Amino acid sequence: MSISMSSASLPIFQTMLTNLSHLLAKAQTHAEAKKFDPSVLTQYRLAPDMLPFTRQVLIACDAAKLCVARLSDLEAPKFEDTETNLVELMSRIQKILDWLKTVPASALDGTELKSITFPVGKDKTRTMTGEDYLKHWALPNVFFHVTTAYAILRHNGVDIGKADYLLGSNP
Amino acid sequence: MSISMSSASLPIFQTMLTNLSHLLAKAQTHAEAKKFDPSVLTQYRLAPDMLPFTRQVLIACDAAKLCVARLSDLEAPKFEDTETNLVELMSRIQKILDWLKTVPASALDGTELKSITFPVGKDKTRTMTGEDYLKHWALPNVFFHVTTAYAILRHNGVDIGKADYLLGSNP
Repeated sequence: MSISMSSASLPIFQTMLTNLSHLLAKAQTHAEAKKFDPSVLTQYRLAPDMLPFTRQVLIACDAAKLCVARLSDLEAPKFEDTETNLVELMSRIQKILDWLKTVPASALDGTELKSITFPVGKDKTRTMTGEDYLKHWALPNVFFHVTTAYAILRHNGVDIGKADYLLGSNP
Repeated sequence: MSISMSSASLPIFQTMLTNLSHLLAKAQTHAEAKKFDPSVLTQYRLAPDMLPFTRQVLIACDAAKLCVARLSDLEAPKFEDTETNLVELMSRIQKILDWLKTVPASALDGTELKSITFPVGKDKTRTMTGEDYLKHWALPNVFFHVTTAYAILRHNGVDIGKADYLLGSNP
């Protein structure tokens, strides 16, 4: 087995989204144990002009979904982004995981040189090859938003550590 | 060109470490403009039991270096971890970038199934295939520590955004 566009994308997204869901479950348990409203966590931002926790989770989900959809040309499920609590966010992650399971490796393999054009900001687009898009856009974005979600929870005293972030790395 | 162990590792590490150095340069400029001691940033932690900024940068460097060294069996440069300020940390990043440039793709390609055993914590090891080690250990670690460094700077008011984190994604 050599590395391929499918093996360099699907298992990484699946592992990181599974780990993200695990972090959310620990956050929910923590809030219940400490008897505080979990929306303190979901609305928390590390800086006044950073996105809150909820958006970090939704963007991590979208970055993985859109990468797979754009490389494969498969239609991805669409969502209204109405999630407001940890349980709903875990459900959103699960929907992405369920969809990723349906994507065959063959839909992604061989897309290294495929031209991918995607929106950046409100009125711009960028075009990259499939391989560059995966390596220099999708992966950095998924990891960024999972790690930022982790940082928000950690900063707020949720009992998580690197082992939770890397939980599913034991294939 | 199809994706390979070298193309799925070297350019990602090089881009992210270059971007990390860019973040540090902006932090240095910010501290000078605001006339505060940059060690406020280098010693900052997002939680009392998280590693400070300096260690986040050093571990990002080490995670990339050790991945390439373990996959290739090439000897990597060793460092004393004595860096204490942003300028020294940028120099450390540059040393890693200089070394990564010397690594030929052929030293990494074909290592998908190579057995990689590495230390985890103080007295344990783990063994993964080369491909799993890259995808589920090295990449998540590099991105984790670069993003956490970003989060610390952002939380402390340094004028950076996602475009800085993704700066070198324009190949």
